[in-house]
Amino acid sequence: MAGYTVSFLPNEIEINCDSGTNLLELAADAGVEIKAVCGGAGSCGKCQVIVKEGKVNKLDQGILSPDKLEQGYVLACKAEVISDVVIEVPPESRLSKHQILLDDDMGDGEYLTEEDLNIDDRVELSPLYQRLELELNEPSLVDNASDLERLYTEINRDRNLPDLKTPLPVLKELASHLREYDWETGVSLAAVNGNYEVAELSAPDDENSDYGIAVDIGTTTLALNLVDLSTGKTVAMEGAYNKQANYGDDVIGRINFVKENDGGLERLHQSIIKSINELIENAATKQGIEHSDIKTAVFAGNTTMAHLFLGIDPNNIRLDPYIPTLNFIPPVRANELGINIKEESWVYCLPGVASFVGGDITSGVLATELSKQDKITLFIDIGTNGELVLGNQDWLMTCSCSAGPAFEGGGIEYGMRAMTGAIELFDIDEETYEMKYSTIDDAPPIGVCGSGLINLIAILNEVGIINRSGKFDSELEHERLRDRDYEKEFVLVPKEEAGIDKDIVITENDIKNLLRSKGAIYAGIRMMLRNMSLTEDFIEQVLVAGGFGNYINLDDAKKIGLLPDLPADKFKFVGNTSLKGAKISLLSKDAFDRVEEIAKKMTYLELSAEDQSQDFMDEFVSAQFIPHTDLSLFPSVTE
Amino acid sequence: MAGYTVSFLPNEIEINCDSGTNLLELAADAGVEIKAVCGGAGSCGKCQVIVKEGKVNKLDQGILSPDKLEQGYVLACKAEVISDVVIEVPPESRLSKHQILLDDDMGDGEYLTEEDLNIDDRVELSPLYQRLELELNEPSLVDNASDLERLYTEINRDRNLPDLKTPLPVLKELASHLREYDWETGVSLAAVNGNYEVAELSAPDDENSDYGIAVDIGTTTLALNLVDLSTGKTVAMEGAYNKQANYGDDVIGRINFVKENDGGLERLHQSIIKSINELIENAATKQGIEHSDIKTAVFAGNTTMAHLFLGIDPNNIRLDPYIPTLNFIPPVRANELGINIKEESWVYCLPGVASFVGGDITSGVLATELSKQDKITLFIDIGTNGELVLGNQDWLMTCSCSAGPAFEGGGIEYGMRAMTGAIELFDIDEETYEMKYSTIDDAPPIGVCGSGLINLIAILNEVGIINRSGKFDSELEHERLRDRDYEKEFVLVPKEEAGIDKDIVITENDIKNLLRSKGAIYAGIRMMLRNMSLTEDFIEQVLVAGGFGNYINLDDAKKIGLLPDLPADKFKFVGNTSLKGAKISLLSKDAFDRVEEIAKKMTYLELSAEDQSQDFMDEFVSAQFIPHTDLSLFPSVTE
Ligand code: FES
Ligand code: FES
Repeated sequence: MAGYTVSFLPNEIEINCDSGTNLLELAADAGVEIKAVCGGAGSCGKCQVIVKEGKVNKLDQGILSPDKLEQGYVLACKAEVISDVVIEVPPESRLSKHQILLDDDMGDGEYLTEEDLNIDDRVELSPLYQRLELELNEPSLVDNASDLERLYTEINRDRNLPDLKTPLPVLKELASHLREYDWETGVSLAAVNGNYEVAELSAPDDENSDYGIAVDIGTTTLALNLVDLSTGKTVAMEGAYNKQANYGDDVIGRINFVKENDGGLERLHQSIIKSINELIENAATKQGIEHSDIKTAVFAGNTTMAHLFLGIDPNNIRLDPYIPTLNFIPPVRANELGINIKEESWVYCLPGVASFVGGDITSGVLATELSKQDKITLFIDIGTNGELVLGNQDWLMTCSCSAGPAFEGGGIEYGMRAMTGAIELFDIDEETYEMKYSTIDDAPPIGVCGSGLINLIAILNEVGIINRSGKFDSELEHERLRDRDYEKEFVLVPKEEAGIDKDIVITENDIKNLLRSKGAIYAGIRMMLRNMSLTEDFIEQVLVAGGFGNYINLDDAKKIGLLPDLPADKFKFVGNTSLKGAKISLLSKDAFDRVEEIAKKMTYLELSAEDQSQDFMDEFVSAQFIPHTDLSLFPSVTE
Repeated sequence: MAGYTVSFLPNEIEINCDSGTNLLELAADAGVEIKAVCGGAGSCGKCQVIVKEGKVNKLDQGILSPDKLEQGYVLACKAEVISDVVIEVPPESRLSKHQILLDDDMGDGEYLTEEDLNIDDRVELSPLYQRLELELNEPSLVDNASDLERLYTEINRDRNLPDLKTPLPVLKELASHLREYDWETGVSLAAVNGNYEVAELSAPDDENSDYGIAVDIGTTTLALNLVDLSTGKTVAMEGAYNKQANYGDDVIGRINFVKENDGGLERLHQSIIKSINELIENAATKQGIEHSDIKTAVFAGNTTMAHLFLGIDPNNIRLDPYIPTLNFIPPVRANELGINIKEESWVYCLPGVASFVGGDITSGVLATELSKQDKITLFIDIGTNGELVLGNQDWLMTCSCSAGPAFEGGGIEYGMRAMTGAIELFDIDEETYEMKYSTIDDAPPIGVCGSGLINLIAILNEVGIINRSGKFDSELEHERLRDRDYEKEFVLVPKEEAGIDKDIVITENDIKNLLRSKGAIYAGIRMMLRNMSLTEDFIEQVLVAGGFGNYINLDDAKKIGLLPDLPADKFKFVGNTSLKGAKISLLSKDAFDRVEEIAKKMTYLELSAEDQSQDFMDEFVSAQFIPHTDLSLFPSVTE
């Protein structure tokens, strides 16, 4: 096969490939991050790139307009390299490097404060990997226990760890180590399967710290805390986009990719491992430590991410009746996964509850101490799936509503993630409908992020441009409102002001998608209340999790009917609780064990089950209005 | 370095080596088995070979007579190759391939019968690795447990295994396997650390058997049973000499080798693994199965063998206060050790009690059900160390007496193991002192094995050639009795009749060594009785274990004062109980667990401890007489 050179602009990254190579996959290999919401199915249109020089073989490009094709646009996922080519990745197709992850709002990895949550028992430092200093009795003819029994006896002097185990490599050095240090020693214990393992021997009074990592594996973003296990302090934080985004924007896209592509599972598995290893590399370098100083790791992610992280086929997650291979994940050795920390270290994944309520949610329940609250609390994580938890110290119910990726920009023509150039706030003149807006980093606008979209729906409805069904006012005539194929669109930013070479608009279809998303979440909340025979009034506290949550304007969210109409003081934005829970678990064996109890305790409400689905449909339809068909549910908004 | 060719006669094995290579080690590499009782220290003189052609560099050969040197003899352990050479290994230096291991007397691997032991509860078949047939409930939207939880639920339907675990490779295939077979499946569970692991999935109604192996790792010999785990039947038996014998005849020799040689530990470790793999290979071939059909393995061996098997330095075993690295050995993966059975299979070692009471003894206690006996029972395993157990269902005491290798031929000029050409029985004319003898395989005599030596001492004393102190009658004049350096020797077989080119003799020093050995064992028995405030009369049953035990003539053994003077019907020869116990453990999880209880229950009597050593010395001195200084202890012998 002929070898060709492909260069990607603007980054000027060059890579060689064989004839016939898929352009989207090649970009992934080259480290060029291109949006691919549908995972390469050719249906989302997000992977558009421009062929500047050379030729590609165009497969099904049906979704692209003739205009675009004319201008050299192709869907990267449906193009094959057949010559040397120069490819431009336009801004709207890029996964920008601007990361919201490590801003303050992502949490600094510290626990929520007592004041935040009104709970008084905080975690004690007893990490999953901990070092003890021991002084053993010297053996004699009358005290001739073996070295290992002697060690166990001393470990258990003030503890009760009946089932200590020691792997062969440590056994091999035990005798000489104990004698070299004259029966004083440091011993590191790793928690595993309810017991402890003697993971490492060290010199007595060894001053070196052991480190652990807590990682949130989000579908979109990864966040890592490097933690000093002796102090519990986070010493470095790293974040990145999940490189799997090259193979599908949401979990369904990823699962499809695995199903449709030979070796797809391995590819997604390796992609996430590689992403995590890069974060580890960066964090270790910042702190000036070796990989081998990192002795353990706790991961929290949704069920699909956990499967892909472990290299387990997630296919059944998306097929009725939505059964994952496992929810409770046994510890795995780092080297079994290729995670670049100390060899043979144990890696833990927090347990999930069901295919669409994963370890990120149980981690969130731990981090917010929801399961210890007196108050009936609603926990909301708004992402591709809206995951909800309702409960308190006595009971916990959870469900997942397929909100779709609208709030992350998916299915919205100019929707995008919260990155440079995204509009996050609008202001509209009630008379003239002139629009003002602010963008992230004050860059020229290239699209609208989730919080911007919520705000937009709220104000468009408020000034009457759209009605409660999300349709444009049929009476309205305005230069910004114009027809397109079978619908209408409203110009938010004319081409001249935009950072891209097009008008930025919102279409009726976009609005429909947004209302479906918010409706799904609100219907989920209603379903949980129904099943507990409660109403909104009983909710004493609402915890909104996730990086996105922090950006939502509460009033806007209530106005459009995304969040229940409760007093502002009942709401708390709690940040990346998946990461926080992972860190708490890393630092406290008790907390780690508690996540398992939490997962077991949570009642999963399957909204598509026979006894629920009709009610859910009714709720879903009602909730697709602004704010709802039943205005009595939103008294403050409609007063 | 120049490369030389060394050929070993009589087998005509050739091997190339660098100049300066140690001849004994080279022989080991070539698979030529040479006796090396002292482990290459140059002190035992057992490794003599004859240089037929070429030259070797002779290091310290002090122990060889000028005569021998003249004839071309060298100590292989103290010779380096410096030219092409032809080396003859004389019969007396060979580890012959004649194996006593698999004769009937080694046991056929079946359990002792009820009649043998008067116990009624036999083991139930519940192997450490067992296969279940399960029918799972199909999942639905209202029964949406994960695949793994569903499997666990079904496994636990009639069982109580709270802490099931499943390793990653099995998790990866779980989802597709369950669906392929429509929720019916075979599941194999491996016992590990008190819990069970889901080790393998199989098609429902899979007809293939799973196999396990039970292995006795003796210092001298290895014995393996290949067992069909579904029936409990032994389907193949293999035995071999422990190739480690090339590096030292007894455990102290082996430990010395490890200490004195760089890489010695690895060498001994690999040697035993290789030996075991050969047995596995042979057994698998006989049965026509793959290595991967063998799913688990149980090993029993003394503490030094267990350390070497695991690759753990045994050095502290031989140093006061004689502390092993461990007695209770966690399961290890087969591939961690290089044992060639199914990858990732668990390998179990039976627990020991102390440096000189190992898993072979606890295994023997299990196999003989000693710990369930009403009768006060004495268990004796006569080998390099005499290991003794005294007790019944209420208490168990154990000790080890450094009997030395006399009964295995060590320290006895013409002593040898029970192999072709070994004299096992003498007959002497009371008047003329003419000797008759019978040899193993009726071959020309080349030495005397253990049972022959016991018999010899008995009759020499009986006819008055030696007195009760083991000295030759100072009055006696006979052509067979002659002086040598500082002692006397008695000709057993003149050169003309012998299979070697020398007279076969017994020296006063040989006799001294034999009396030391038997004295050590008898003193051990006395010490245990003393510590329990018992006398010989209280012993209701004596179980003599080990291949060697089977050959001992009971009357001879009582006559020389090796075994207590009790009625013959109190003695049972129980064969290779180490192997039997390993097999029982393999087939019964309960039995396996019971060995651990047995090991914990056994009180170890350290004969060199301050409160014991003086008494032991007294007993030891008294017991070096024939049969003892206190004749009242041997009424039937001396009547
Ligand atoms: S159209 Fe190419 S990734 Fe969706
Ligand atoms: S003298 Fe060579 S091995 Fe003992």
